[in-house]
Amino acid sequence: MYVAQPIEWTDRGVVMLDQRRLPAEEISYTYNDYREVAKAITEMVIRGAPAIGVAAAMGVALGVLRSPAQTLEALRTEFAEICETLAKTRPTAVDLFWAIERMKRRFASLSSATSDLAKIREAMVTEARQVHIEKKATDEAIGRYGAEFMPAEGQVMTQCNAGALATGGIGTALGVIRVAVEQGKKLHVLVPETRPYLQGARLTAWELHRGGIPLTLITDNMVGHFLKTGKVGAIVTGADRIAANGDTANKIGTYQIAVLAKENNVPFYIAAPISTFDLTIAGGEQIPIEERSAAEVTHIQGVRIAPDVNAAHPAFDVTPARYIAAIFTERGVARAPYNESLRALAGS
Amino acid sequence: MYVAQPIEWTDRGVVMLDQRRLPAEEISYTYNDYREVAKAITEMVIRGAPAIGVAAAMGVALGVLRSPAQTLEALRTEFAEICETLAKTRPTAVDLFWAIERMKRRFASLSSATSDLAKIREAMVTEARQVHIEKKATDEAIGRYGAEFMPAEGQVMTQCNAGALATGGIGTALGVIRVAVEQGKKLHVLVPETRPYLQGARLTAWELHRGGIPLTLITDNMVGHFLKTGKVGAIVTGADRIAANGDTANKIGTYQIAVLAKENNVPFYIAAPISTFDLTIAGGEQIPIEERSAAEVTHIQGVRIAPDVNAAHPAFDVTPARYIAAIFTERGVARAPYNESLRALAGS
Repeated sequence: MYVAQPIEWTDRGVVMLDQRRLPAEEISYTYNDYREVAKAITEMVIRGAPAIGVAAAMGVALGVLRSPAQTLEALRTEFAEICETLAKTRPTAVDLFWAIERMKRRFASLSSATSDLAKIREAMVTEARQVHIEKKATDEAIGRYGAEFMPAEGQVMTQCNAGALATGGIGTALGVIRVAVEQGKKLHVLVPETRPYLQGARLTAWELHRGGIPLTLITDNMVGHFLKTGKVGAIVTGADRIAANGDTANKIGTYQIAVLAKENNVPFYIAAPISTFDLTIAGGEQIPIEERSAAEVTHIQGVRIAPDVNAAHPAFDVTPARYIAAIFTERGVARAPYNESLRALAGS
Repeated sequence: MYVAQPIEWTDRGVVMLDQRRLPAEEISYTYNDYREVAKAITEMVIRGAPAIGVAAAMGVALGVLRSPAQTLEALRTEFAEICETLAKTRPTAVDLFWAIERMKRRFASLSSATSDLAKIREAMVTEARQVHIEKKATDEAIGRYGAEFMPAEGQVMTQCNAGALATGGIGTALGVIRVAVEQGKKLHVLVPETRPYLQGARLTAWELHRGGIPLTLITDNMVGHFLKTGKVGAIVTGADRIAANGDTANKIGTYQIAVLAKENNVPFYIAAPISTFDLTIAGGEQIPIEERSAAEVTHIQGVRIAPDVNAAHPAFDVTPARYIAAIFTERGVARAPYNESLRALAGS
C-alpha cells in the first residue's frame, strides 16, 4: 500500500515533499545543504512534530557530511553552528530539540572516541537514519495496538492529519487505519476537512486516496450528522500533548468530535507516541492553547471569504479524558484511569 | 440600526441586493420586468425561503403593473404566464408557492369585482408590498418573544444566516439578537462560518458588522471549544422545517451545535415563523435531507481544496426536540412537550 514519504535520506541528499502544495501538486526537493533543510522546516515544506524531528536529525547529518572541515576541531566548530541553525527553525516543536540533542550526544561520543572524520560522518548519517527508522517502528507498533479496536468493516472517522505526512512513518491515527486495512478490515474513512488549514481535505484525503483506502470528505459541521446517521464504528485521532490524567490537546475540533461520539455511542480513541505524554501537567486546563492568525479564518488559500471582522483562531482544543475510550501508544493501550495507565506505560 | 435589505419595492422597480457577491461587493439591481425577477430567484441573487416569497409576490405585481394588456382578458392571459414563470424558479421553496397562490387569489378577487385595469394594477402592487410588510411584522414579533431569552450581556451564538438577508425583515434568529441589542442587552455574537456555503462568514458576519453588533467569526470546528470555555449564554438559530414533535431541520451543523450546547449547559433555541411548522410530519426522521453537489465541499469559491475524492454534502440535518430549550414564533414561545405547544400555536 502506498505510504506518502514526507522526507527521505538518499545518496543524492535529503528529499522532501512540499506539503504546502498538496494536493494540487506533488513536488519534491533534494537538499544538499543543511541550511536548505532549516529553511524547509521554517517555511513548512514539512510539518507534524515527529516529521520535523526526523528532518532536524537529517539536517544535522547532512551538515556534518557536507562540511569542508579537514580537522576534528574545525568540524566541532561547524557542528555547533549546524545545530544552532536547525534549533532556530520552529521554536515550539518538542521533537525538533529532542532530535538535535540526540545528534549532539552521538557527535560527542564519536568525537571523543575517534578523530577519523570519515567514520564520524558515516556514523552521524547512520544516526539520523536511525531516528527515522525508530519513528517508523513507533508508528507501526501504535498501528498494531490500535488496529484491534477498529471494526471488522464499516465506517471510521479521523480528524486533521495524523498520517505519514506528519510522522515520516505510516502515521499515528492513519497508521491504525492502515494496519487495520492491511489485516483485511474493510474500512471506509470519513474525513472532516479540518478548517482553517484544511489538513483533512488537503493531506488526509490525499494520503488515503493514494493508499487506495476508500474515504468520504465532509465539512467539519457534518460530523454530528454522520455520527448520528452513518453507523460509524470508531473514531481515531492523533494528539499534540497528553496530560497525566489523560486530557488530550489536539487540533481544534477534536473536542467536539469526542463529545458527539459519546452522545452517539461511538468509541473515540487517541493514537500517539509516548513522547506526546506530558506527565508534568496534571490536567488539560493547564495546557496552553496557541492562538494563531485570524487571517487564516477570514481567508481560505488567500481568498477572502468574510468581511473585515474580528475572528478567533485557537489552533488546538482539549478533550477531557472522560470522552476518550483508549489511548494507543507504541508500548500498548492505555485505558481509564489514565493517571495510572499513562504512568505505567511511560515508566516501562 | 442598519438592517440589510435584500429586496425592496420602489417606484423605479424591484431593487434586489446580489447576495452571491457579498461581502466582497454590495451590488443592487433594479428590475422592471418580471422575467428578470424570476431569473434573479433562479440564480440566487436572493435566497432564504421568506425572502424568496417576497420576491415572488413582487415579481407577480411587477408583471401585472408593466403588462401592456389593454383588456382584462389580455391581462388575465398574461397573469397566468407571469405566475407560471415565477413558479418555475425554485421547485422546492414552499414560500414561493405560498406567495404566488396568495397573489392569484387577490387577482381573482379583484378581477371579478372590477374591470378597471389601473385599479387592479395598483391593488396587486399593494398586495405584494403587504406580503413584505407581514414578513417584517412576523420577524419583529419573533424577535420580541425571543429577546427575553437572551442574556443581559455576554456571548451568544447563531449558525448559518437567519438574518435580514434571508427574510426581508430583521431576520428570525438574527432578529432575536437585534431586538435584544436594541433593548440594551450587551451581546457579542459568535458566528460559525457555516461550510460549505459560508453563509455565516459571508452573510451573518456582514449583517452584524453593518449593524454595529460585535461579533467573532469562528470556524465550524471551534464551536465546541467556545461553548466549553467561552461563557456563551444562549444559542439561537433559524429552522427550515419543524415536525409536530419539535424535531427541527435546519442548515447542516445545527444538530452538533445543539448537542454541544446541551453538554455544556447552554440553552439552544430555534426562531422561526409558524409557516415553518409541518405538523403533517410526526418526527424528524421523516424529514427528507437534501443531498447537494460534492463539488461544493471539494471547492471553496471555485478554488479546489481537496484531491478528486468522494465527498458528501447533506445540506441540512435534524436536531431532535430534546436538545431544543424553546421555539420562538410570531405567536409566542413553544416549549416541551412540543406535540402540544406547536399545535396550540398553529391553531390560534
